[in-house]
Amino acid sequence: MTAHGGFGPDHLPYAVFSRDGGPRRVGVRLGDTVLDLHEATGRPELESRSLNAFMALGPEVWRQTREQATELARTARGVPLAEVELHQPFEVADYVDFYASEHHATNLGRMFRPDSEPLLPNWKHLPVAYHGRAGTVVPSGTPVVRPSGQRRPGPGQGDAPVFGPSQRLDIEAELGFVVGAPSSLGDPVPAAGLAEHVFGVVGVNDWSARDIQAWEYVPLGPFLGKSFATSVSHWVTPLAALEAAWCDLPGQDPRPLDYLDPGHTRGLDVDVEVVLNGEVVSRPRYRTTYWSPGQMLAHLTVNGASLRTGDLYASGTISGPGDDEVGSLIELWHGERFLDDGDEVVLRYSAPGTAGGRITLGEVSGRVLPAR
Amino acid sequence: MTAHGGFGPDHLPYAVFSRDGGPRRVGVRLGDTVLDLHEATGRPELESRSLNAFMALGPEVWRQTREQATELARTARGVPLAEVELHQPFEVADYVDFYASEHHATNLGRMFRPDSEPLLPNWKHLPVAYHGRAGTVVPSGTPVVRPSGQRRPGPGQGDAPVFGPSQRLDIEAELGFVVGAPSSLGDPVPAAGLAEHVFGVVGVNDWSARDIQAWEYVPLGPFLGKSFATSVSHWVTPLAALEAAWCDLPGQDPRPLDYLDPGHTRGLDVDVEVVLNGEVVSRPRYRTTYWSPGQMLAHLTVNGASLRTGDLYASGTISGPGDDEVGSLIELWHGERFLDDGDEVVLRYSAPGTAGGRITLGEVSGRVLPAR
Repeated sequence: MTAHGGFGPDHLPYAVFSRDGGPRRVGVRLGDTVLDLHEATGRPELESRSLNAFMALGPEVWRQTREQATELARTARGVPLAEVELHQPFEVADYVDFYASEHHATNLGRMFRPDSEPLLPNWKHLPVAYHGRAGTVVPSGTPVVRPSGQRRPGPGQGDAPVFGPSQRLDIEAELGFVVGAPSSLGDPVPAAGLAEHVFGVVGVNDWSARDIQAWEYVPLGPFLGKSFATSVSHWVTPLAALEAAWCDLPGQDPRPLDYLDPGHTRGLDVDVEVVLNGEVVSRPRYRTTYWSPGQMLAHLTVNGASLRTGDLYASGTISGPGDDEVGSLIELWHGERFLDDGDEVVLRYSAPGTAGGRITLGEVSGRVLPAR
Repeated sequence: MTAHGGFGPDHLPYAVFSRDGGPRRVGVRLGDTVLDLHEATGRPELESRSLNAFMALGPEVWRQTREQATELARTARGVPLAEVELHQPFEVADYVDFYASEHHATNLGRMFRPDSEPLLPNWKHLPVAYHGRAGTVVPSGTPVVRPSGQRRPGPGQGDAPVFGPSQRLDIEAELGFVVGAPSSLGDPVPAAGLAEHVFGVVGVNDWSARDIQAWEYVPLGPFLGKSFATSVSHWVTPLAALEAAWCDLPGQDPRPLDYLDPGHTRGLDVDVEVVLNGEVVSRPRYRTTYWSPGQMLAHLTVNGASLRTGDLYASGTISGPGDDEVGSLIELWHGERFLDDGDEVVLRYSAPGTAGGRITLGEVSGRVLPAR
C-alpha cells in the first residue's frame, strides 16, 4: 500500500491550478488535495499562469520552497482536488524528443527499414534526438483529434500518396525532463549539471501517426506525424522527490565520448503503465533505457545551444526487452492494429519515494476524437 | 537608384529598438531613421520587448497601424539609426525550417546520398520540413561561436566518431515568414489563409555544421548541426509592403494534393545577395523555389497543428539553377571549403516595392568566432 496514493509528504509535486475561475496559482499536491504555495509563501512568482517564473529562480529557491511546502504539508489543510481546475503546468520553450531506448529503436528500425540493420551506425555513439513542436504540447485530459495527412499509397494504388485521416494512430510512453534554470548560448552543460538546470519530470505521451511519419520522415525527420499533439501530465515531480529513484542503467558498449560522461550513466527507476480503455496493456520500465538523462542534457548542449526555462526534453518511447514492456502500440501489436476513435489512453508512472514507499508521478490521459 | 536606400515610405518595416538603455519600443524605418510607433499611436502593445503583442492583434490592426505609420512618415522626424540599439524583433514560438528549393534539395541529396536518387520519393508531393530550435534564433549581428560535436571518422580513423570543432561550418540563405495571428488546435489553415496569419518576412541565415549534421541526421533529421544558431534580420517587412513582389513560381509536376492548392503557387520576387567578407559571392532568387509560402503554411497545419504568434517558418536554403545563385557554401564550393574563424557573412535582400522601385529587406549578418 502506498500512503496518500503516492502523493505523501515525500512527494509534493507541483501544478498550476485555479478555483472557480479565479487566478492561476502554483500548488503542491498532498493526497487528494492541493496546497496553495502562493498563499503560504507570498512569493509573487507563484501567482502565475505557469511554473516558468518560479522555475527560473534556480535550485536554491527550489530547495527553500520545497522546505516551505513540506512545512505546509504538516500544518495546512489543502483544497480538495475536486474543487480545482488544473492547467498546463509550464510554458514549453523548446521541446526535444530523444530516442534513448535501445529496444524501442531496434523494434522501430526493423519495421521502418526492414532491409537494413535496425540500429543505425550513430545510435550507440550519441543519443539521437529531434526538435518537436512546443506549441502543441497540451495538458493531460486534452482530447486528441485524429490528424489527417499524406501517406504512402497502398499496393496497387500507384505512386502518388493518399490523403486522409491517419490509419495508424499510436502513442509513445515517455518520461519528460523540464528545464528550470537557463544556460548561456555557447556554453555546453555537462551531464553532471543536471540538478542545476532540470527542475523536475513529467509524464509524456508523444502521440504519433505512423503512416504520416513513414512517408514524410526522410531526410529531415518526423514532422506532421508528431506535431498534432504531445500530452504532458499536470503534475511536475521535482528531482528532489526522486532521490531514491536513481539507479544504474544497463551499460554502454562502445564507451561513449568523454563529453557524455561514460561510466556515470545513472537513470531513474520509474515504472510506467500503459492503460487502454481502462486495461493495463503494457508496463515499460524507464530503467531499461540506454542513454541517461544527464547524457541527453550534455548532448543537447554540446554544440553551445542554450537552455531556456520551460525547455522540455523527453526520453523517447520507453520500451524494455519484454513484449509486455513496450511503450508504443506499434510494438505491442506488431503494426496490425492501432488506436480507434473514442479510445482513451492513460499513462501512469511511479517510482521509489524517499520515505520508503512508492510515489505516483503525474498521469497523462487523452481520448481520440474523430478526424475533422 | 532606390529612394531612401530601399527604406522609403512604401516599405516601413518594423523593428524593436531602444535609446540610451531606455525601454524597448516598436518602430518603423524610414531611410536611415526610426519612427517611434508607440509615441505616435499610444498603442500599449507597441511599448514592448517584442513585436508579439502587436502582431497578435491581427490583420485589421496591422492595416490601421500601417496607415498611421505612413502618415507619420509624411510628417514626423525619425531618430537617426546611429542613435538607437536594435533588438531581436520577436519572440520565436516554434521555428520550422522547410526544404522548398528543388535545386538545393537536389544539390544536397547528391552530396549526402551519392548512391541514390538526389530527390527522395516524397519531395515533389509535400514541402519537407522539420522543427528547429527556437531558443537559439538570434538577431542579426550576433557572433556565432563555431560549434563542437561528433563527426564521422575520416579514412583510416576506424569506426568511432571523432569529437571537435566543426570543420564544415556553412550558411543557409533563407527567407523567413513570421506568424502574427494564431490558429486553433485541430483546425488546418488553407494556403489562401496566408495574409490572415502571416505578419511579414525576415531574412534568415540558418547556420549549419555539415559534418555534425551528416553523422547525426539519420533517422530523425538535423539536430545539433543546426541548433547552435539561426540569425534573423532586425527588420520585419510586413506583407503589405510586398504586394508588388508576388510572382508565379516555376510550376509543379506532379500536381500536388488539393490541400496544397495546386495552380495557385505564387511566390515572392525577392533577390538575395550572399556577401562574404565584403564580397558578393552568390545571388539566390527566391522566385526559383518549388513550394510557395502559402503551401508551406497549409502543409504545416494540415494535421491540425496550431499556429502561435511568433511562429517562424523559413523557406530552407534558396538555390537557383545557376552556379552563382546558390544559398549555401557547400553548393558554391562543392564541399571543398567552408567558413573560417573570423569570416563575416551578410545576407542582403531586396524586392519590388509598391512605389515602382525596389525595397531593401532586413539584412542578416554574423561573424564566426573560434570554438570555445
